[in-house]
Amino acid sequence: MSSEKKIKNLYAVFNPKSIAIIGASRNPTKIGHVVLKNHLDGGFGGKIYPINPEAEEILGLKCYPSVSAIGKKVDTAIISIPSKMVAAALEDCGKAGVRGAVVITGGFSEVGNAEGEAELVRIADKYGMALIGPNCMGVLNPASRVDSIFLPIYKLGRPHVGDISFISQSGAVGGCIVDLAARAGLGMAKFVSYGNAAVIDETDLLSYLEKDEKSGIIVMYVEAIRDGRRFMSVARRVTKKKPVVVLKAGITAQGAEAAKSHTGAIAGAAEAYKAAFKQCNMTEAESLDELFDFAKIFYQPRAHGRRIAIVTNGGGNGVLAADSVVKNNLELAQFSDSTTKELIGFLPPYATAKNPLDLVGDADAHRYESALNAVMKDPNVDAIVAILLFQTVQLDSSVVNIVVKASDLRQKPMVAVCTGGEYTELHRRILDSYGVPTYPSPSSAIRALAKFLEFSKKHPK
Amino acid sequence: MSSEKKIKNLYAVFNPKSIAIIGASRNPTKIGHVVLKNHLDGGFGGKIYPINPEAEEILGLKCYPSVSAIGKKVDTAIISIPSKMVAAALEDCGKAGVRGAVVITGGFSEVGNAEGEAELVRIADKYGMALIGPNCMGVLNPASRVDSIFLPIYKLGRPHVGDISFISQSGAVGGCIVDLAARAGLGMAKFVSYGNAAVIDETDLLSYLEKDEKSGIIVMYVEAIRDGRRFMSVARRVTKKKPVVVLKAGITAQGAEAAKSHTGAIAGAAEAYKAAFKQCNMTEAESLDELFDFAKIFYQPRAHGRRIAIVTNGGGNGVLAADSVVKNNLELAQFSDSTTKELIGFLPPYATAKNPLDLVGDADAHRYESALNAVMKDPNVDAIVAILLFQTVQLDSSVVNIVVKASDLRQKPMVAVCTGGEYTELHRRILDSYGVPTYPSPSSAIRALAKFLEFSKKHPK
Repeated sequence: MSSEKKIKNLYAVFNPKSIAIIGASRNPTKIGHVVLKNHLDGGFGGKIYPINPEAEEILGLKCYPSVSAIGKKVDTAIISIPSKMVAAALEDCGKAGVRGAVVITGGFSEVGNAEGEAELVRIADKYGMALIGPNCMGVLNPASRVDSIFLPIYKLGRPHVGDISFISQSGAVGGCIVDLAARAGLGMAKFVSYGNAAVIDETDLLSYLEKDEKSGIIVMYVEAIRDGRRFMSVARRVTKKKPVVVLKAGITAQGAEAAKSHTGAIAGAAEAYKAAFKQCNMTEAESLDELFDFAKIFYQPRAHGRRIAIVTNGGGNGVLAADSVVKNNLELAQFSDSTTKELIGFLPPYATAKNPLDLVGDADAHRYESALNAVMKDPNVDAIVAILLFQTVQLDSSVVNIVVKASDLRQKPMVAVCTGGEYTELHRRILDSYGVPTYPSPSSAIRALAKFLEFSKKHPK
Repeated sequence: MSSEKKIKNLYAVFNPKSIAIIGASRNPTKIGHVVLKNHLDGGFGGKIYPINPEAEEILGLKCYPSVSAIGKKVDTAIISIPSKMVAAALEDCGKAGVRGAVVITGGFSEVGNAEGEAELVRIADKYGMALIGPNCMGVLNPASRVDSIFLPIYKLGRPHVGDISFISQSGAVGGCIVDLAARAGLGMAKFVSYGNAAVIDETDLLSYLEKDEKSGIIVMYVEAIRDGRRFMSVARRVTKKKPVVVLKAGITAQGAEAAKSHTGAIAGAAEAYKAAFKQCNMTEAESLDELFDFAKIFYQPRAHGRRIAIVTNGGGNGVLAADSVVKNNLELAQFSDSTTKELIGFLPPYATAKNPLDLVGDADAHRYESALNAVMKDPNVDAIVAILLFQTVQLDSSVVNIVVKASDLRQKPMVAVCTGGEYTELHRRILDSYGVPTYPSPSSAIRALAKFLEFSKKHPK
């Protein structure tokens, strides 16, 4: 099977009009039950065919003994049955013209069963199927509502439709990020956990998302890259169009050893990976926190330099931000004379018109509005860090709209820093869901901003 | 006034039997109103005297024109009136025998009014008062319920009684940490934001907390240290008894410049500070995130080495943890033969009895219990990282008690990693409130653990 056909058939996996759930079950602890229920609860708009030779009906849907017994077109099969039965089910799918398959079932190369996995590859190749897995969590597309994540929605939230697409070799890491995105109010375009990568691998997925208009930002968690040369050639091409953030696990010898028994992947060679990512203009994250922090900043408009304005209602937080600016090799902007004049015009006498701009603890939304407007149009400022401490008496929810409005002008990148508990978290979620990336500390915000400015420099728009 | 007397009088500030709120007001947007209301709502057990010459009664309490007019003993005054009136009020407090004063009011050295500040120092010295501030948020003691934090409780949560005491030069940074602690379910012993440090400075507070039995762990945010030699001599002494975590802001030239207009402090000389902290065996945090992450690990029992066991129900997260262990110069423990045997005894056939120990996605609380018991008693293991992904079907809330129980044996330090949204956050809070420090990622957990093991090595118990 040509690689192109395989990649093209991924469309059926992400946007199926009809799905067969092989291993559908009445038992709520079974994966086949959770996946079926998630499609029903999630409002999947296409046809759903539960497959189980021992049931007549599950969750109100007619049940079929096999895919070929349906007698109608099926785009994609989601398979969760014992490993020994997967090949036969897949063969049946192939005969029935199914183009995409998500094999959730484990017990293949990750436990040394290379032969079992090779058989799946042979079948997928024979029928030209885009096979995701085995040993994976599969796909989530909040737009088409296909959702093979077999974890309950009350435990793992589903994000709304958005720009970020996430390719994860690990289901667990992928699930964590999806859950974090849902909690933060961040939208996602596509999510895929590809497990053992028997047929469809990280490079195929990257190729597919390159052309997917809904995917504005691509985020990857990889333990191993199967064909480095091919991956690099694709990555180099994709990063010309879209930012790609990557976290490579198994970067140390011990980590690599752990990865081997996890997804059967040979990882390692840390420095080689690092150099390759850099050469391809990918943005490398060094931890799960960074991966999430970086992912959400790339929706910002490109910056034209590295001079940062800090606007704050907490002096100490401004000092910490100034330290972070310097540590990350960025510069503190020097406000222009006209900006300084404008600031003096509205600031109270006990505030100083300098950067970091401390609006002082009694700043209200109106003072933030004047300050953000002033620094947004200052030609000496390339990007803005707005520190919003929601604990103060004067700062109320109305500042959220002020910040979103300033950010919506899309003249300069802007990030928000909000450190605090419940009341703060609520407002962070609103900001994030409106496209203003928020961070829990000056250092995490400015680390992400520095990565984004690095990307901006290489990819001016 | 001798330094000892001043420090001794801090007891009155943290544990007053009677307080005067100078500047108490009926206007809910005034600091003097919020502080009074917080004491009433918080259930402060002592006497409260609102001071306002223009009111008869505020929030149901009889109002006095001045502290001397009360005619009864007052331990501490919390002062929030215009800066020009502070000296006279303080003088009146001195005459009335008040031992502690928290001056919230700003407008002193931080805006160039050195003379005004010098006057406060003269008065405090004359009467031997322990004066906190000016330009500060003051004190919070969840045990005595004194609470001069002038921010509403619905915006800035108050933590329950616990071991961590926090000394913060900045009110804003201090408020953020208090709010984070409340949200995380972490208890605090004392909190103090000391602002301009006109009388009581960081070293006095450190001295005081050294002898405070309720303060098990001391955390500091400083922008400048006034008397380096004295600070170091005290810090060196304190760290022999209690861990001290410190975040120094204004560590870069630009940050130092910002600090100057914030609390009037001369900061800077990054490397000198770094070296000094190390020499005094303080644990340095480099960001707000680290400060918070490190603070909560020191309640753990001391470790006797640096061999880490990782227990997880998500393979990828285990790989990331293994990478972090190596990056932080720790070692992955090699399980003993008897542990390996024990693990094989209860693990399902598709799991491997190696470190990182992947209990696999279908692990339930019972499997965690067996695994934690096995590694807890393995002589080859010095500390445990328990990764708990609450998104899986099988892992329910009962694992929280298992982890708390294993940790309660206090044989080895144990931290938990829980990455995810709402359901996960709920369980994190329970674990944190029971003394098992939780982290949102393997990297943040293991960074904190590495700092703690460094401390353990220097201070074995």
